[in-house]
This record gives sequence, C-alpha cells and structure tokens, in this order.
Amino acid sequence: MPAEVYIAGVGMTKFSKSSQALPELMVEAASKAFADAKVGAIDYVLIGVMSVEEFTGESNVAASIADRLGLSGVPSSRVETASSTGSAVFESAFYAVASGYHKNVLIIAGEKMTHLPTARTTKILAEAIERSERSHGASMPALAAMITQKYQHDAGLSAERMQSVLAKVAIKNHYNGSLNPYAQFQKVISENEYFGSKWISFPLRTYDCAPITDGAVAVILTSEKKLIQVSGLGHATDTLAVRHRDSLTSFKSTRLAAQQAYHMAKVNPEEISLAEVHDAFTPFEIIGTEDLGFFPPRQGWKAVEEGVTSIQGRLPINPSGGLKARGHPVGASGLAQIVEVAWQLRGEMEPARQVQGARIGLTQNIGGLANNNLVTILQRSDHYRPIPVYWKPLFDPGDTKPRLVSDDPSSVKSGKLETFTTLYATPEGIPSPLTLGFVRTNDGHLILARGRQNSLKIGQRVQVEKEGDLYYFRGISLGGLIKDGMGKWLHRTLVPKQKEGEP
Amino acid sequence: MPAEVYIAGVGMTKFSKSSQALPELMVEAASKAFADAKVGAIDYVLIGVMSVEEFTGESNVAASIADRLGLSGVPSSRVETASSTGSAVFESAFYAVASGYHKNVLIIAGEKMTHLPTARTTKILAEAIERSERSHGASMPALAAMITQKYQHDAGLSAERMQSVLAKVAIKNHYNGSLNPYAQFQKVISENEYFGSKWISFPLRTYDCAPITDGAVAVILTSEKKLIQVSGLGHATDTLAVRHRDSLTSFKSTRLAAQQAYHMAKVNPEEISLAEVHDAFTPFEIIGTEDLGFFPPRQGWKAVEEGVTSIQGRLPINPSGGLKARGHPVGASGLAQIVEVAWQLRGEMEPARQVQGARIGLTQNIGGLANNNLVTILQRSDHYRPIPVYWKPLFDPGDTKPRLVSDDPSSVKSGKLETFTTLYATPEGIPSPLTLGFVRTNDGHLILARGRQNSLKIGQRVQVEKEGDLYYFRGISLGGLIKDGMGKWLHRTLVPKQKEGEP
Repeated sequence: MPAEVYIAGVGMTKFSKSSQALPELMVEAASKAFADAKVGAIDYVLIGVMSVEEFTGESNVAASIADRLGLSGVPSSRVETASSTGSAVFESAFYAVASGYHKNVLIIAGEKMTHLPTARTTKILAEAIERSERSHGASMPALAAMITQKYQHDAGLSAERMQSVLAKVAIKNHYNGSLNPYAQFQKVISENEYFGSKWISFPLRTYDCAPITDGAVAVILTSEKKLIQVSGLGHATDTLAVRHRDSLTSFKSTRLAAQQAYHMAKVNPEEISLAEVHDAFTPFEIIGTEDLGFFPPRQGWKAVEEGVTSIQGRLPINPSGGLKARGHPVGASGLAQIVEVAWQLRGEMEPARQVQGARIGLTQNIGGLANNNLVTILQRSDHYRPIPVYWKPLFDPGDTKPRLVSDDPSSVKSGKLETFTTLYATPEGIPSPLTLGFVRTNDGHLILARGRQNSLKIGQRVQVEKEGDLYYFRGISLGGLIKDGMGKWLHRTLVPKQKEGEP
Repeated sequence: MPAEVYIAGVGMTKFSKSSQALPELMVEAASKAFADAKVGAIDYVLIGVMSVEEFTGESNVAASIADRLGLSGVPSSRVETASSTGSAVFESAFYAVASGYHKNVLIIAGEKMTHLPTARTTKILAEAIERSERSHGASMPALAAMITQKYQHDAGLSAERMQSVLAKVAIKNHYNGSLNPYAQFQKVISENEYFGSKWISFPLRTYDCAPITDGAVAVILTSEKKLIQVSGLGHATDTLAVRHRDSLTSFKSTRLAAQQAYHMAKVNPEEISLAEVHDAFTPFEIIGTEDLGFFPPRQGWKAVEEGVTSIQGRLPINPSGGLKARGHPVGASGLAQIVEVAWQLRGEMEPARQVQGARIGLTQNIGGLANNNLVTILQRSDHYRPIPVYWKPLFDPGDTKPRLVSDDPSSVKSGKLETFTTLYATPEGIPSPLTLGFVRTNDGHLILARGRQNSLKIGQRVQVEKEGDLYYFRGISLGGLIKDGMGKWLHRTLVPKQKEGEP
C-alpha cells in the first residue's frame, strides 16, 4: 500500500512582469510555503521549470535552487514536461512520498520570461511544437486558432456567437483575476475592450491568449495527515504533431489523464466542486471542460453562456482568473492551479472569491499543444462521502491507439480544408501575416500547409503544392469571394497590417 | 512498505560521434531494452537529458520521445540534474515503481553533443557552473584541474607522481574501453601517448578529460521479481560555488549520497564487487573511490598504483572504460553506469571484461561540479548474505551544514594561494591561456581570481585586486622564480600557445 499524500503548505509570488531573477522568485515562493506548512526537515526538493537554460542562460537549476534555499546537501532534481511542468513535478513528488522513501518534499515551480523580446519568447515556446509544423510557421496561438475555427464549425456556431463565447470566457477570467491578489491582471475587462483588442491569430485576439509572465509557486507534500489530500493523478501524452491526431476539437491527452485521475480518486465529474482548467487560450477552457466530462462534447460553450462556470455558478472554472488573468509563467502554471484549489478547499479565501462548500477540486494542465497533459484531484480529508459503486468511464479506451501515419504523402494534389487561421504575431524570423491551414488529403492524411489566399472557408476544396519541406494550398473553383460572417478579416486587402502582438 | 524494484531489461547505443539525431538514438536504446526485458505494457516513460534545448533546439522532449516510440498516450516526464541526469531519472523511476502506482517504467537517457563546435559545447556545459566562477572563465576542466593540484599538494605527492597516477587511471580506463563494444574509444593508450597529449587545463591533459559524445541508454524497471534488484539509492547536493565549500579534495555530495545508499542497501563499502565512478576527469575517479569509502582520504592514488582498481584487481573501478573511454553524453552517463553494473552482475559478459563473482555493484554519478551527485547500488536478488549489524557511517553528518558565506569580501587585499591552473581550452569568448586560482583571504573567505603571473606555487602569499566583478591576483615577494617540479610549464615564456583543445 502506498503512503497517503497530503499538502502541508503552499505559497506563491505575485505573478507579474518582475524585476527579480528566477532564483529569487523561487526562494520567495518556498519561504511562504515553509511559513504555511510548519513541517520539520525537508528531505527532497523537486524543481519544475520549462526552458530555464534558454530564458536565463543558466543550467544545473536543481542544485542551484537547493543551494539558494540553504538546503545544500538535500537531494534535488528538476522535472519538465513543457507547459505542464508544474503538474508533472507535483506528480514526481507525489510518487516520492507515496513510496515511503520521503516524508516532506518541497516542490518549487517557476519561470522567468518577461525580460526577453516577445518574438524571442514566442520562438522558445514554439520549440515545443513538432518540427515540421513549426517550420511552416505554426506558433502555439496559430494552432489554437485553427482548433477554435474547427470547434466553431463542428459545434455549428456562427462566427459571431463563437466570438461572443470566447469574450465571455475572457471577461469571466479577468473578473476572477480582479479578485485575486496574486494575479498579473487584477482588472475587469468589458466586452468593448475585448472586441477592441488586436488579432494574434484569427479568430483569437490578445484577450484570448494567456500573457507572458514571471512567477514561482511552492508546495510542500507530506505523508503526515493534513486537511488537503492528494486523491487523484492522471497523466497522458498525445502525438507531438497536431496533424497526426484523430480529433482537432478534443484532446485525448486530457481525456486519458482525467480517466486515470477520476479512477484513482474514485470520483465522477459530477462530484467536482471547482476546477482550474488550462486556459492558455480561451477556447481551451471550453474544450477542457468537455474533455474532463463536465459537459458533453461541443456543449461546453453553452455552460459559459449560461454562467455555469462563473465563480458563483454551479461549477466554477478558473476562480483564480486562470492562466488568462493570473498569468502564465509556463513551468509554474500547473502548480499555481494546484495552490488555488488547495486554498479554495481550505475555505479561507476572501468571501468574494471563495467557492462555497468546496470539497473536491480538480486541475487540468496542458503540456505543449496538448501532448503532455496532467489532471490532479485534491480533496478535503475530512470530507466523508459514499464511494460510487459505478465509476463512469469517460470514453472508450480502445480510442487511444495512435493511427499509423505516413508523413510524406508526396502524391498529394488536392484535398479539403479542415481549418485555417491567419497568424499576425509570427515567431522570430517569419513575416506577418501568415495564413496556415490543415488540409485533409484525398487519401485521408491531415497535413499542415501555408495558405496562398485569404478568402477561405472550412470544408472547401483546395489544391496543394510542395516546395522544399513546406506545403502550400490555394482554393479550387471558389465560385467567387467567400464571406463567412467574419469574411471581412479574411480578405487580404482588408487585413490591417498590425504591429507584432503580445501573445 | 514500498514495492521492491527490479531491473527487467537494459539497452544502449554504441557511444560515439553519431550521425543519428537524439530521438533516433533514444528509440534504438529503448528497442534493445524492450527486447531484453520481455515485459508487458509500459505504464510510464521517464526521459533523462541535460541540455537538449540548447544542443538541438527542441523542447517538449518527454512527449516527443513517447510519440516516437509509438507510446503516445503513456505518461512521460523529463528529469534533469546536469551531468547526473542519468542517475536522477533512474531515481524518479524507482520511486514511481516503489510507490505501487506503476508496474513497468521505461527510462531513457541520452544526449546529442558532437554536432556543435567544441567551444560552443564547452560554453553550454559551463552554464552548470556558478555564475561568478563562470564569469572569471572557469570551465569544468579548469575547476577539476585546480582540485587536482590541491589534491596533489595535500596528499604530499610530487607533480611527477601525480601525473603518473593520472596516466595510470587513463591507461586503465582505455584498456577497459578496448574490451567494451559500446565504448567510444576501443583502443589502448600507452604512457607515451598519454604524456604526448596536449594540456586542457594544467595539470590535466586531453587524456584526463572525458570526451564529447552522442549516445542513449534505456532501462526498464519493474515491480516483478527479476535477477537484478535496485537495493540502494542516495542523492545529495552541494553548494553551487566551489569556493563555498569546506574541502576542495573531497565531494560532500558523494559522501552524503553514498551514506544514504549504503544505509538503504544495508551494505558496507567492503561488500561492493565493482563500481562505476564518475571519471569525467581522471582525478575524480580517485577522489570518488575515497568519498565512497573504498579507500581512506588521500590514499586512493595508491590503489591505482597497486592495480587494485583494474578489471582483475580486488575492486574493479570503471570496468566499462568509464566516462573517459566509453564516452560522456552528459545526460546519459549515469544510466550507462547502471547498465554496466547490471551486465556485470548478470555475469554474462565476454570473459576478458567480466568481473568474476560480482554480487553487489555501485555507481557514482556527478552532477555539475559535484553539486548534485547520486549513488546507486544494485545487487543480485539470488545473493543471500548476512546483513551487517553495524552499519558504518562514512563521516559525521554534522559535517554537512553549509558555512555561511559572504560573497563580496570587498576589503580583501591579500591572501594565500590554495590552488591554481592554467586553462588552455577556454570557453567561447575567453582568450587562451587563462590562469585561475582559489585564494584564501586573510579573513577566511575562499575566492576565485584570475592570475596575472605564471610562476605560482600552492601556499604562496598573493595580493588581490577587484576590477568590476572580477578578482585578479599576483604573487607577493616570491623571492625569485618558483619551479615546483612541473615549473617549466608554469612560466609564461615556456608555455607553448596551443590550439584550442578537445576536452
């Protein structure tokens, strides 16, 4: 029997554009966790950070931080899974305590990002994207934007309604952030402000994308009984390439991780009091709530419209403000989600932002473009409840086998446009704007290609050419200019040339 | 009670300058481990790699490798502790199995380094060094060289005898490598070749330094009983800055890690049949064998002279050829040490390189400049032995508290030279040669400084100046040119200007 694992203490810095160096941020977060935990000796330190070498020019971070904490001697390792690092390092610490070999494990996750130019940061973050998709110019926002257009299409929403739903997610999370003293953005935004913000990658605007942030978070896990217990963990990967997936509008990595976490915690989605969901982009919050089993597929947007996910709703999502408003120091966000849930379960928050009667909380953290996701479930150890006899599988696990994919369908001549975007905030070295699309070829492959025209519609026939390593597409027999609601932004002559956006 | 943990299978690529990319090397190593293990489903993948982002420009490596293996879906994390990454990722996998939450965990460690210019690689590796020491120009070989000079001084050896001992370590490890089909260097070297090799950082030559290498290693851990059991693990950090330590000639991180590992395995050093010791530099093998309790402090060199550590000796050290001859893909070396010990314990090696009757083996793996070290003990599960009643502490744990250090002894005017080196293979951007020394100031601080003269002797009085962030030193009242045995290399006019060395 593994040891049971509890949260002894938590702490975090304010998330912000900070003048402090990463080790200082981490030491501040750890000091707060020590003050909160009141535990004895720490016997293991685990550090979560994504791209510290590239962001700061320093390696050997695990030993470095242990030294800075005055814990030189204590073992220390670094754990990393791209943007889900904060949850993955928590998972590693969980196993160390559960194994019985460690009693009190200090976890610190952080990232220092704001000191670099945005295009450089975008490039570093894009290294998490599969090489061929990256070489076409796909950034995280570009891929998220294409997923959004596909979701809108499959859910049968008009462009206006989709934009309105995304605006509601952004406005909700900024409202929640306005109540959170640790949030990078502590101000509400209006619908006008949302619709006035610039395009990052059509149809995503600045207010749809999590900001670039500095910050650190610390948690101390212990085998000694405390109020907050770690009751479920799930972790799953997906194909690195988005084009190798069966679905663009649901993340298998979330569904598999959720399934494991619910199974381990012996809970069903209905029992969750609140969740922190990885809203690096507003549409990912909606997709996340569907993949977690809170709402049926392609129905999550309704919950947003109906206010179900607001802080006073039936199932508050991102009461912290989420990545969107709390900020997104990439290696730290997962652990910040866990800290928020721990605070909510303790029930000691300021009344305006306290989710009433919270007993079981969940976090969902996305690594890369949803290829290394983790779900973590915490519950109050004084919460006695009937264990469900029937635990509900979220989906058929037979669903999880990767398709065999050939990556060079060289005979491809034409296909159907599955989704597309126009990217304005291009990575370092790629001219803006750039149109990208996923094309389903006649023999069933999904390929990413650069677009040679701006009047596009999901489902239209396109012809594809290969030049060097890159694919290009253009429409076949369009039969005149297509305007699909947002058509005015799709036509090159109407696209205002923007300054590079702040993703 | 934690689950017992066994090695189900192992595999590795030949270590070499390879034309393969890192994912290909990792997949090859994993395929061999699968073929060796014959286990069922893998439920967790852990990847060890040190500086993959900087070496290859790719992040998100854990998800990427799982995908390449056709294991997309399976959870995957990356673990990193600089050059001890290979052992640290093994440790994380151990806890995952010991916790009972995972049954079969695949560990892959690797590094791809040889495609970059040497000065660039040296610079990436130097990012593991404390910032101030690095800014003085200290590389890993420079710090190792100063440790070597101090060891020679404290052990009371002449420069000639020290050089002869280092030569013997290099010749022994190259001989062992000549028997190992996985080694980068499969040729014996003569004393003449050793003494003819160029200086990297005085008194270390090319043949004292592990090479730059590509390679990958895989191990599958399981909770199912197998022949090789993981019986001891130890892990400890030390101060990042070498100047903050009490001793330059013994690594507290090794001693603490060894103490934990012996304690967990309930063995004493006398019971170890063979060990793989982190010989990134030949003197580190000698210091390692002392810190591990095999030989008394400052006596390890005698064991080398007497042949005790040769493959047919009483305690074979680095029967694989060590980092020196097998090669040193930084993130992979620790796991390669573990694979060598597993093979030796199975007793199925080619007769010339089989350590006879091996029952318990140990690995020692250094992270950074000995600030994140791990010790791992494997034993045959069919080896029944009396558990010692008295387990022998290696040293007084009261010894492990860090000294309080102030890092800016701005009033420093003079001090005593503790050790020094002349570095020829300088990191990118620093002119060669560069003299560096550790100076003990009159108020007891140890500082790293650049030297302004070449005739130096350990223990001599020096004066120190600060210019910007850097310290400089020169001798006081030398009373004429000092020649201490190797004096002819110390004098600038006799130092041949070398091409940048291959460390």
